[in-house]
Amino acid sequence: MSAFSKRVEYMKPSAIRESGKMIGAKPGCISFAGGLPSPDLMPLDAMRDISARVLDEAGTNALQYGLTRGYKGLVEEIVKMLAKKDIVCEPKNIQVTTGSQQGIFLTAMLMIDEGDAIVVENPTYLGALTSFAPLGCRYVDVDADDDGMLLEQLEAKLQVEKNVKMVYVVPNFSNPTGKEWSLERRKGLLALAEKYDLMIIEDDPYGDIRYEGEVLPSMKSMDTNGRVIYLGSFSKVLYAGLRVGFTVAEESIVDTFELFKQGIDLQSNEFAQNQIACFLQNYDLDAQIQSIVDNYKEKRDLMLTILDEEFPKSVKRTSPKGGMFVWVELPEGVDTFALLPQCIAEANVGYVPGGPFYAVEEQKNTMRLNFSNVDKEAIVIGMKALAKFLHKVL
Amino acid sequence: MSAFSKRVEYMKPSAIRESGKMIGAKPGCISFAGGLPSPDLMPLDAMRDISARVLDEAGTNALQYGLTRGYKGLVEEIVKMLAKKDIVCEPKNIQVTTGSQQGIFLTAMLMIDEGDAIVVENPTYLGALTSFAPLGCRYVDVDADDDGMLLEQLEAKLQVEKNVKMVYVVPNFSNPTGKEWSLERRKGLLALAEKYDLMIIEDDPYGDIRYEGEVLPSMKSMDTNGRVIYLGSFSKVLYAGLRVGFTVAEESIVDTFELFKQGIDLQSNEFAQNQIACFLQNYDLDAQIQSIVDNYKEKRDLMLTILDEEFPKSVKRTSPKGGMFVWVELPEGVDTFALLPQCIAEANVGYVPGGPFYAVEEQKNTMRLNFSNVDKEAIVIGMKALAKFLHKVL
Repeated sequence: MSAFSKRVEYMKPSAIRESGKMIGAKPGCISFAGGLPSPDLMPLDAMRDISARVLDEAGTNALQYGLTRGYKGLVEEIVKMLAKKDIVCEPKNIQVTTGSQQGIFLTAMLMIDEGDAIVVENPTYLGALTSFAPLGCRYVDVDADDDGMLLEQLEAKLQVEKNVKMVYVVPNFSNPTGKEWSLERRKGLLALAEKYDLMIIEDDPYGDIRYEGEVLPSMKSMDTNGRVIYLGSFSKVLYAGLRVGFTVAEESIVDTFELFKQGIDLQSNEFAQNQIACFLQNYDLDAQIQSIVDNYKEKRDLMLTILDEEFPKSVKRTSPKGGMFVWVELPEGVDTFALLPQCIAEANVGYVPGGPFYAVEEQKNTMRLNFSNVDKEAIVIGMKALAKFLHKVL
Repeated sequence: MSAFSKRVEYMKPSAIRESGKMIGAKPGCISFAGGLPSPDLMPLDAMRDISARVLDEAGTNALQYGLTRGYKGLVEEIVKMLAKKDIVCEPKNIQVTTGSQQGIFLTAMLMIDEGDAIVVENPTYLGALTSFAPLGCRYVDVDADDDGMLLEQLEAKLQVEKNVKMVYVVPNFSNPTGKEWSLERRKGLLALAEKYDLMIIEDDPYGDIRYEGEVLPSMKSMDTNGRVIYLGSFSKVLYAGLRVGFTVAEESIVDTFELFKQGIDLQSNEFAQNQIACFLQNYDLDAQIQSIVDNYKEKRDLMLTILDEEFPKSVKRTSPKGGMFVWVELPEGVDTFALLPQCIAEANVGYVPGGPFYAVEEQKNTMRLNFSNVDKEAIVIGMKALAKFLHKVL
């Protein structure tokens, strides 16, 4: 059989998928492993209404091929929405994408030749690593504290590393840690990007889901030199399954995204773009977001309370002010992937082992816990069982 | 500003887009340039029904994240549909894609390292070239007659070319020529693929839209060694804007597609996959296809009649037995791209210049004419005007 490309070798089998299979195989197992928004908060009646309305108003235009760049009605709504976030842009700066995941891939296509390096946090979004992997990139991994990436460590690495092309960050309530970058770090990264000639991918799917604290400006809103490519998504606040996201960047970059996207999938679903536009025109996105925030905040509080009160004192956790995840660190030497089968069997609880979220060196004593897609009763039962299990094995 | 990847240099600005802009700028211009199915034949009432039904029956499951591989209900319907075409496969052999366009890209990701070669017909589908371009491939271009690619010419090239990894073909009523490969050529290509260790991408978006002649077996249906990756689509027979297509291949290949797709866009639209599945379960796809065939056949006949009766005798054309396009060859030395502005201005008619459909050496005396998305009256007026124009300029 004909030899496959080198890309195939670059792809790692997913430990997460293996974990998911293990958890799925145990009936009734409480899973904190998923990364899904709560389906109960997806406005189903609104979807009935907007689907019918789009077909009445746009007819077959919503079912026909459209522009690779994106449906104009949606692009205009996105521009308005971004203005409220102090991101000043025009339709020419927007490329609609199939989820913000596709924005990650397009940016990597734009910037990365084989052997080029991407700066990522320890830990970082696993889906970004999956996106980057087939391009044969290297990683410059940088540790983070509660305020974001450690910029001194980043600069020290930038002084010795060659062909570093871009930095990938999720500054608001990241997957997997839930951390938020401070304003100072945001400004600091922009300055370093300027000094070392880097692009920044600012991936912001969770920014709207904030439980407390003041809204911090995005790097894109402070970007004076077009160094930031901002990625947004409707997946976490509206309908994940519609796969509608967008990128915001300089026109020349977006023009290139459009060319790449022609080859990758021609365009994103036209009906879905009409549906999201129709929602934004006729429904209250802020009220929708508030209902999500109210629901998730209660679940987060519950999870953190049990973590603090019942888990072994040697267990550390992040303090997510938003988003869908808490990141947990067990004592050094513990391997959460190795522990998972026992945890499923004995505690009837599943989690995502944290190792795969590290680009270079897996820190195996970590785990990601999701609270958005678990009901409160299950959080109480599952977290107490996990606490008991950890008391036993640590 | 940080240097972009080499991929950006590989992308050619699109002459087609320029042509489209020119045609669009002239109000009332009759355009044979598009490549769109007729929106009048997209079942709009069925779409109202299936949208409501999916939301009633699947609820938020249709709006939530799903499997990267594809929605199970749709995959099962695809397997059944393929069995009727003598393509025997199981769900494990299917990867749902965002249009068959994404199948082209996934296959190129799988097979092509920089500098590897892809065999393509002269001319070939421009969207495939757009998909391949950022991967930095070379092309082995092979001429074709009315029965398909000239296999002697292909083999002569295979004997000297290095790192040829795959062959891309549209054997049924191709875009841009409308030609159909003979059974002998299909078998011949399979044999050459075996002899020279090549993969075949069999791209088949138009196969169902047949106006005459017996159905010929797909190469996939005759593939005993897993050398064929078959690409299908619902865009030409149902709803183009939903962007639902699929690939059929060996399980190990489809597993790799799934990994790539996780990084590219995580998954295709879940609602759209439910909608297509619901149509296939509750409506008659064969009747839908028949209505398209009846409509397009009349338009094709009209276009070919005027071509034969009124165009200069020096003009050659293909004889499409299906699909949406006729390919026209003018005398040598004519440049259809250069002629287009004059044709728009004087004849009020637009077409796609054929040059960009050649991977290596543009044959500039060619044009592609679309008949699916033009009504009969416009075909008569436009084709007569084009005939008159060509009599004047040739």
